[in-house]
Amino acid sequence: MARKLIDVSELQIERRKFEPVLPDILKNGAASVKPVEGKITQSVADQSKIKEIFKNIYGLPEITFKKGTNNAVVEKAVKVAVVLSGGQAPGGHNVIAGLFDGLKIANSKNTLIGYLGGPSGILENKYKVISEKLLCEYRNTGGFDFIQSGRTKIETPEQFCLTKNNLLMSNVDALVVVGGDDSNTNAAMIAEYLKKEKLDKCVVGVPKTIDGDLKNKYIETSFGFDTATKIYSELVGNICRDVNSAQKYWHFVRLMGRSASHIALEVGFKTQPNIVLIGEEILEKKMKIVKIVENIVDVIVKRSQADKNFGVVLVPEGLIEFIPEMKKLISALNDALAENANAVAGINSAAGKKEFICTKLPVELSDLMKSLPSGIASQLMLDRDPHGNVQVSLIETEKLLIEMVHKKLSELKKENKYRGKFSAITHFFGYEGRCGIPSNFDANYTYALGYNAAVLVLNGLTGYLSSVRNLARSPKQWECGGIPLTMMMNIERRHGKEKPVIQKALVNLNGSPFKEFAKNRDKWALSESYISPGPIQYFGPADVTDMTTRTLKYEQSEKNIE
Amino acid sequence: MARKLIDVSELQIERRKFEPVLPDILKNGAASVKPVEGKITQSVADQSKIKEIFKNIYGLPEITFKKGTNNAVVEKAVKVAVVLSGGQAPGGHNVIAGLFDGLKIANSKNTLIGYLGGPSGILENKYKVISEKLLCEYRNTGGFDFIQSGRTKIETPEQFCLTKNNLLMSNVDALVVVGGDDSNTNAAMIAEYLKKEKLDKCVVGVPKTIDGDLKNKYIETSFGFDTATKIYSELVGNICRDVNSAQKYWHFVRLMGRSASHIALEVGFKTQPNIVLIGEEILEKKMKIVKIVENIVDVIVKRSQADKNFGVVLVPEGLIEFIPEMKKLISALNDALAENANAVAGINSAAGKKEFICTKLPVELSDLMKSLPSGIASQLMLDRDPHGNVQVSLIETEKLLIEMVHKKLSELKKENKYRGKFSAITHFFGYEGRCGIPSNFDANYTYALGYNAAVLVLNGLTGYLSSVRNLARSPKQWECGGIPLTMMMNIERRHGKEKPVIQKALVNLNGSPFKEFAKNRDKWALSESYISPGPIQYFGPADVTDMTTRTLKYEQSEKNIE
Repeated sequence: MARKLIDVSELQIERRKFEPVLPDILKNGAASVKPVEGKITQSVADQSKIKEIFKNIYGLPEITFKKGTNNAVVEKAVKVAVVLSGGQAPGGHNVIAGLFDGLKIANSKNTLIGYLGGPSGILENKYKVISEKLLCEYRNTGGFDFIQSGRTKIETPEQFCLTKNNLLMSNVDALVVVGGDDSNTNAAMIAEYLKKEKLDKCVVGVPKTIDGDLKNKYIETSFGFDTATKIYSELVGNICRDVNSAQKYWHFVRLMGRSASHIALEVGFKTQPNIVLIGEEILEKKMKIVKIVENIVDVIVKRSQADKNFGVVLVPEGLIEFIPEMKKLISALNDALAENANAVAGINSAAGKKEFICTKLPVELSDLMKSLPSGIASQLMLDRDPHGNVQVSLIETEKLLIEMVHKKLSELKKENKYRGKFSAITHFFGYEGRCGIPSNFDANYTYALGYNAAVLVLNGLTGYLSSVRNLARSPKQWECGGIPLTMMMNIERRHGKEKPVIQKALVNLNGSPFKEFAKNRDKWALSESYISPGPIQYFGPADVTDMTTRTLKYEQSEKNIE
Repeated sequence: MARKLIDVSELQIERRKFEPVLPDILKNGAASVKPVEGKITQSVADQSKIKEIFKNIYGLPEITFKKGTNNAVVEKAVKVAVVLSGGQAPGGHNVIAGLFDGLKIANSKNTLIGYLGGPSGILENKYKVISEKLLCEYRNTGGFDFIQSGRTKIETPEQFCLTKNNLLMSNVDALVVVGGDDSNTNAAMIAEYLKKEKLDKCVVGVPKTIDGDLKNKYIETSFGFDTATKIYSELVGNICRDVNSAQKYWHFVRLMGRSASHIALEVGFKTQPNIVLIGEEILEKKMKIVKIVENIVDVIVKRSQADKNFGVVLVPEGLIEFIPEMKKLISALNDALAENANAVAGINSAAGKKEFICTKLPVELSDLMKSLPSGIASQLMLDRDPHGNVQVSLIETEKLLIEMVHKKLSELKKENKYRGKFSAITHFFGYEGRCGIPSNFDANYTYALGYNAAVLVLNGLTGYLSSVRNLARSPKQWECGGIPLTMMMNIERRHGKEKPVIQKALVNLNGSPFKEFAKNRDKWALSESYISPGPIQYFGPADVTDMTTRTLKYEQSEKNIE
């Protein structure tokens, strides 16, 4: 596993020299920082249920840091373990670097180990000891390849017990879990279990996800969102410029981001394409798929009247789940296919399967299924996960929309209401952005999150998420501390069971970012207000290298008005 | 058409300030440069046929520039027209800027107009007068949106006549055609026609194409190749890093580039993925598709034995045309489908069409067709251009390969020769790179090409391609001049007719770039030698901002050895 990076690019060499800027409060290390307990907290919803599940770590106070002498935290050497959990996000390696430096500056005898391949590394007790020699090649780099990641969840009593035993066996004093909402929920479960078992071991989480859906009043953004959206924006900006040069295609770009449309919205701000679909708005307005198609067709027709048979549409990956009728259809299909698995398997053709399954659906859903293009209908029936459920992320929503738009435009053409040409090209961007070299913002933010996590665990704090705030300001002014993991939780139904989970942040239709978008979108639709943000810059004018996301800017300005 | 760019990014603002570095020979303008005639030239092949077609511009001498007083070129004001032809390539706007500055510095009364929407703008006499006020927003930007591009060819006697009349009507003294091999062939036809008509009007070409297939002894590279391959390399590098972090997917990335595999090769050098397919090698070795699949499977199996069920494969867009049996199949299908159009149209299902058309093919091609996955077989039958031909660029070769790899691995699994897991993800990159903000190299190169074109037309030279050489050195040392367009031509069959065309440069299997690749690929296959080149940098260390392509570096070092 200890692969040596022998082949590097010129940029990688230069980027190694980058020194992240620490927030002023942390710059003299853990010994000069004292934790201050704030008010006792409670969960955002379902308080009694969450309290019942997390008897030992519920109701912790919020922690902030102030300057002060704190020699206790540097006297005894500790051993800390870090694990990367879930999908990659730019900056993961800098979390490790910040954590490492925070620990080593406090006490050179402190040690850091990295569990390999995600949480399964904890269960299998596979890890590497992190040294400066190994780490230096990974500072300020993208990817999680230093210790890899994984999606194993620690859930069963046996797994919790194994976790405890492995931590004890390796003399690990604290575990830092770098992950999204699910992984941090899991971190809280482990923290609760260890506390229940009366072990003096801390668990601290770090908020990671390019999707941007792990945020709240206390976590302004998850790391990786800035870099990933900048990469997607570079590409979408280039496509907008191409569209306006060739003037003959409509490009439909699907963007990663699971359910929430944060990525589409941010890329929209940076590039100003003609149409940006926001899943949360479609849900709120209970829009049917034909209505979404009508809205797109409306823009296409209007543009064609000005001889503009081109444009760019952004489609969030999670869109399909937000269309109420599609959500119902997917759910009904999951049931109908499970109940009729053998009968369906016995039918050879996709068309035959579709016809058969339609007889098993309620009339309105059967009609909807019949109205869908055959490719999408097949994807809904055939691409199923091991649990038999439709794999929503594999559904090519952009192709569904294009086929339906095509059909609608043909009808309008016959009625003489449309005289343009419609040629469409599709894209899906996701993997391209998860392992980019972190932007200066993400390089600084992740380093601070890691360093801050070191200070939290050195103070013996458990059940917290590393929190670095005031992010619209310069890094020196960032505020640090810890937020109780239970504070962000509510109860949701998952696979038919009630589970405690960190509340996912969807696009807030009453928030400043969406309002800003809503104010501008009509102009974007009919004009070519395209912007080329270009590639991420690491050197040069601060305006270019250090700007944060528009989403954060609008959200923070809203806070300042309050 | 005179759209004002009111919305710009921070990088766009900063990038406007970039001042391209001119080659020393040009830096004092046209009045201080004298053209030197070299030897009389002849075409690379089919000399007598090319001479017959280009009676008036065949056999021109090569032109180089030397320092010297040349006041004649600045005394009379001239009007020059520029047209962008074919697909977008980063730097097109800087060709216009270099041309504009070269003309204005020679004589402030010189004027430049830009025909709109490609060569059709010449026929429709649609143009805009280019002023500094309009141009300044487009300096150093990507895209062709300033005057747009188009793919119209000027071919018929009526079109030539119309071209002549419109140039006369607008008092245009010279036409600069920015385009690839086809567009520059067209430029030569126009130059020949105008000369034949005894008109004192110059036509000069500028070598543009991201595909890199317009190059020869005298044209070291076409513009846009550097920027586009850097953008694709950023993305492929990120995917490599992702692959090595998640360690569970094989990513198959198809890359634009028409027939030639230059783009795949250059991106291969910059990122070192596990497999890079080179169409020219497949043709040379007359490889069958099953052999290509076997080679890929061989790497997958070997990697799986080391528990590495992941990797990255680059697939050039033009691959399918280089597989001899596929080329035959496509050609036979074109004929069979044309001859049986009605019968095929009468069959409803894709499977039925496939079955029917197989009866019309020679046995070995029928067997091949039957062995292909149904999706690809459908693309071969259904996606046809207006002439009834298969649209090769729409064939998802990466999906074809994946399906066949899957099948082969299943067989090996049954025979207990493979125990790994194979999950594949596909990408296609093309449009993402055609309109990127030009790299420093392309910004300088295109500016020099435009400026150099101004010097050529001011000297009354026609039938030349703007040539800027010695590109592996710093821009100040670049050499300038003109290469007769006819010198690069040969005769090829197009649509059943003999046509003069500029010879397309394919990857030379005896050249340094391919040899360098061949030397390293076995190591790349089994290791993770991945490199993250990262995004294009415009500021910072020269190592990062100013490096040229590996292809050019290897080619130039070869030249120096000779």
